[in-house]
Amino acid sequence: MTLLRQGGPTAVTVEAVAARAGVAKTTIYRRYSDRNELMRAVIGSAVTPPGQPPAEDTRERLTWALGQIHAILGEVLGPGGVAALLDDREPAFTTLVRDLLTPYTTALVRLIEDDVAAGRLRGDLDADAAVSLMFGSYLGELLRHGAVGADWTPRGVDLLWHAIT
Amino acid sequence: MTLLRQGGPTAVTVEAVAARAGVAKTTIYRRYSDRNELMRAVIGSAVTPPGQPPAEDTRERLTWALGQIHAILGEVLGPGGVAALLDDREPAFTTLVRDLLTPYTTALVRLIEDDVAAGRLRGDLDADAAVSLMFGSYLGELLRHGAVGADWTPRGVDLLWHAIT
Repeated sequence: MTLLRQGGPTAVTVEAVAARAGVAKTTIYRRYSDRNELMRAVIGSAVTPPGQPPAEDTRERLTWALGQIHAILGEVLGPGGVAALLDDREPAFTTLVRDLLTPYTTALVRLIEDDVAAGRLRGDLDADAAVSLMFGSYLGELLRHGAVGADWTPRGVDLLWHAIT
Repeated sequence: MTLLRQGGPTAVTVEAVAARAGVAKTTIYRRYSDRNELMRAVIGSAVTPPGQPPAEDTRERLTWALGQIHAILGEVLGPGGVAALLDDREPAFTTLVRDLLTPYTTALVRLIEDDVAAGRLRGDLDADAAVSLMFGSYLGELLRHGAVGADWTPRGVDLLWHAIT
């Protein structure tokens, strides 16, 4: 994941992972047939459906979801992985990440739709666009400032809260 | 700009630009000392301060600003330029684009602050975070779907409108 975050998928070779982990390449090949299978396993273990949101408070749910999104973009994919997704540098990597991301975002869209149906979010909210905007809240800050500070979550929650209620 | 959009700054060599434009490299070197100076001139001619917004209607101003941001991200930088900014692949390029982008975003933040002061946007709006979110509205969609359709502007305007009013 460190290699991915820093250098994108092209930096994640079996050779580089072996060197970084201090193991022989054969140790890796015993478990994974190639670097794509290795990346799928590593990213897949970190990007799972959102799980059960915090019970009642809707604003807390938004904070919870933004925290997950920031973890996916900042700690799993990192700038290297995000950039590779955006310019589709390695189509196999793009497919792999989208495959893993889709169950997550689909579940998140459904949670938002449930909150809309229950009257906890505004009735005409475009749930799919809201999820894109939640991912975007991180990316816009990264684009403009080159880093996303810890204060971004509360600022993002505040803006998005107004967008969805 | 086509080279930049598709392949990022590393694809913008004087050689590639000369080939694409059907001119000799010396023709380019007569005007620009190197590829960075060339990129600065090309991007700088396309990314200028936002200018005068449409007069009265605040929602129209938002549509206008989102249209400019989508043009900067989609038509000037493109996926190649955006990805390079995000992973800071070529620090000279990052600096160059941020230098050109900052006067634009600063002016946009000021326009939003004016609208807040005039009571046209909500009083506690974080203008700087709003600008990041405007850029992010494009990037989140690009990350999730690999393309930003023409319908994104009205969907983004709708969501952001609720965020800022």
